[in-house]
Amino acid sequence: MTTAASAPNLDKGLANTIAAESQMSFIDGQAGILEYVGIHIDDLARNSSFEETVYLLWNLRLPTRDELAAFRKELAAEYDLPAGMWEFIRGLPKSAKPMHALRTMVSALALFDPEADDPSPEANHRKAVRLVAKTPTLIAAYDRHRKGKDFVKPDASKPIAESFLAMLNGQAPTEAMTRGMDICLILHADHGLNASTFAARVTISTLSDLYSAMTSAIGTLKGPLHGGANEGVMVMLKEIGSIDKVEPFVRAKLADKSKIMGFGHRVYKAYDPRATYLKTFAKQIASDTGNQKLYEMSYKIEQIMEAEVGPKGIHPNVDFYSATTYFSLGLDIDLFTPMFAMARMPGWLGHCLEQLSDNKLIRPRAEYVGPHNVDYVAIDKR
Amino acid sequence: MTTAASAPNLDKGLANTIAAESQMSFIDGQAGILEYVGIHIDDLARNSSFEETVYLLWNLRLPTRDELAAFRKELAAEYDLPAGMWEFIRGLPKSAKPMHALRTMVSALALFDPEADDPSPEANHRKAVRLVAKTPTLIAAYDRHRKGKDFVKPDASKPIAESFLAMLNGQAPTEAMTRGMDICLILHADHGLNASTFAARVTISTLSDLYSAMTSAIGTLKGPLHGGANEGVMVMLKEIGSIDKVEPFVRAKLADKSKIMGFGHRVYKAYDPRATYLKTFAKQIASDTGNQKLYEMSYKIEQIMEAEVGPKGIHPNVDFYSATTYFSLGLDIDLFTPMFAMARMPGWLGHCLEQLSDNKLIRPRAEYVGPHNVDYVAIDKR
Repeated sequence: MTTAASAPNLDKGLANTIAAESQMSFIDGQAGILEYVGIHIDDLARNSSFEETVYLLWNLRLPTRDELAAFRKELAAEYDLPAGMWEFIRGLPKSAKPMHALRTMVSALALFDPEADDPSPEANHRKAVRLVAKTPTLIAAYDRHRKGKDFVKPDASKPIAESFLAMLNGQAPTEAMTRGMDICLILHADHGLNASTFAARVTISTLSDLYSAMTSAIGTLKGPLHGGANEGVMVMLKEIGSIDKVEPFVRAKLADKSKIMGFGHRVYKAYDPRATYLKTFAKQIASDTGNQKLYEMSYKIEQIMEAEVGPKGIHPNVDFYSATTYFSLGLDIDLFTPMFAMARMPGWLGHCLEQLSDNKLIRPRAEYVGPHNVDYVAIDKR
Repeated sequence: MTTAASAPNLDKGLANTIAAESQMSFIDGQAGILEYVGIHIDDLARNSSFEETVYLLWNLRLPTRDELAAFRKELAAEYDLPAGMWEFIRGLPKSAKPMHALRTMVSALALFDPEADDPSPEANHRKAVRLVAKTPTLIAAYDRHRKGKDFVKPDASKPIAESFLAMLNGQAPTEAMTRGMDICLILHADHGLNASTFAARVTISTLSDLYSAMTSAIGTLKGPLHGGANEGVMVMLKEIGSIDKVEPFVRAKLADKSKIMGFGHRVYKAYDPRATYLKTFAKQIASDTGNQKLYEMSYKIEQIMEAEVGPKGIHPNVDFYSATTYFSLGLDIDLFTPMFAMARMPGWLGHCLEQLSDNKLIRPRAEYVGPHNVDYVAIDKR
């Protein structure tokens, strides 16, 4: 407190302040590098699975075959919801907007977990597993509920991506669809100290609980300056409508100096390393699902943009090809941000566990810029 | 981004970093001063009301008589819950822990507010009013639900403190009880950039919404390093049991160098300015409600502590006399932290509105401390 009183630094967005250490993801925006525990994201997208990636982030190494099998089993055993939670979802208004609904459902999970306030590392691990395993079920159940469809229960014999798509669409996905979903989950699983991850760390730093921390993260991700941005790409593609309208649309935006959704990133000045493999895969999945036109439009937008603003460091970001992928997988546009939450949850949880392992209450200072020594004037004299 | 890249500061708890400006509360911990918009907290506790204090925090001046009447009316018109929200509370498991329940209920309010995502200043004002007005109703309704009692509807003809106590206890409070509640609400309404207030600012900084921000704040307040601490005083008083056991209890704790709940404060080294008037009032309310013994025990603890550690700057904090006050008002111990949330909501909301008026995404940096260039080794070769 003594040094704090001497010379605090004013840093409103905290862009100049290191608030935490992390062993999970490394980002070099200039070089276009993202590594999870040292492994390049592109290697993981091509070779790994979501479950293996979660294991990597939480254990700081890849699992052996047996360890991975055991971890998959641990997750699968937690896919299903407590009976009261299914009832809870049935009680939500059908008009509930997805991110408000997801925040409320994840918060409510705590009401059905007797371990919610157990701070032991063992209980925290079990809760982290529960949160990663149950969030896909919550999202699919919510989507079916609002559409007036019966719930489809999760399938513990399948990986998360496959079980999720089956619950959501009410039919088994193709292998390519499962793989497309899995890649998106891997690519979004962690990304340093973004705003939602930081919110989770602030919440857990009071020694609150993981449900509270995830609820904070979801509410923070929801904002249009953060996760809310990924829906914009699909909205734009729908607005453009057909491939012959791409060029006039993009040229008009460029002339206007307006933003093109899905291009540029606060951190990446080189090509977003999450977009490279996803781009190849988006092409295949779009073609498999009869959405080739969408991919072609995206690709044409990229070609024009790369020629025009690529040299200035504005390239497609991970949202750009996620959009066509998610859409091809049957997701409504307003589920894109919940998908981001579902994928990022392992990162959020990993950061919370890191915070707890060397905790310090996160409590910055505010500078008071108002008056002093003001009299309380009686109401009739004001 | 350029300066950010050059020399970031490592400050894990952010105690040396100013993350925001605020015009609401000023704290001088060494001198024991707390002002809201320049007015000493003790003047407000003695003379103001919760509604007037909320007006002060949000408008940066005291209201005229007409303005205050209009503001009270605006709040009272929002006490009641949407029909779906009463149903929602009926659906909560009776075993739900209070802070998990409150976080979930406040999150769910968004599902019933068509303006939840309207970012206009006018809609944000209406939502802020709704959140302050409805939170007491949520807490009282939850408490009656878990006890198997019928809901008591709010009374729009009464101030917040009075309507709240009537809903909670199922009978009209005495004037002194209403005043005791009102004082506690005033004293807790804002307190600079504590962890929960900061969490609210982080969430709103992505241009998310006020329901998300309040949900983050509640989840953050919940932790034992923050709001969760205020229940400890009452637990301690119950543990001591009677006045003749106070002295041996306190001496044993002092000999042990253990913490005595309700003494000392991270910020205040002088007497907590919120505790002075509350102490006088706690005496009266305890005596009025047949809880004089509790007050006498508290007073005796303070006398011993002041003699022993007062000179070292350890004095009773606001929690110390809040405990006997809340208990005398009929609140269960596990409702003390929800009370803190209800009282602090105007501060949280005011900070969010300040953040929005000059927003910058709050996104600090993490230092990556793991390996680089690690190969993805095939599973059978691990």
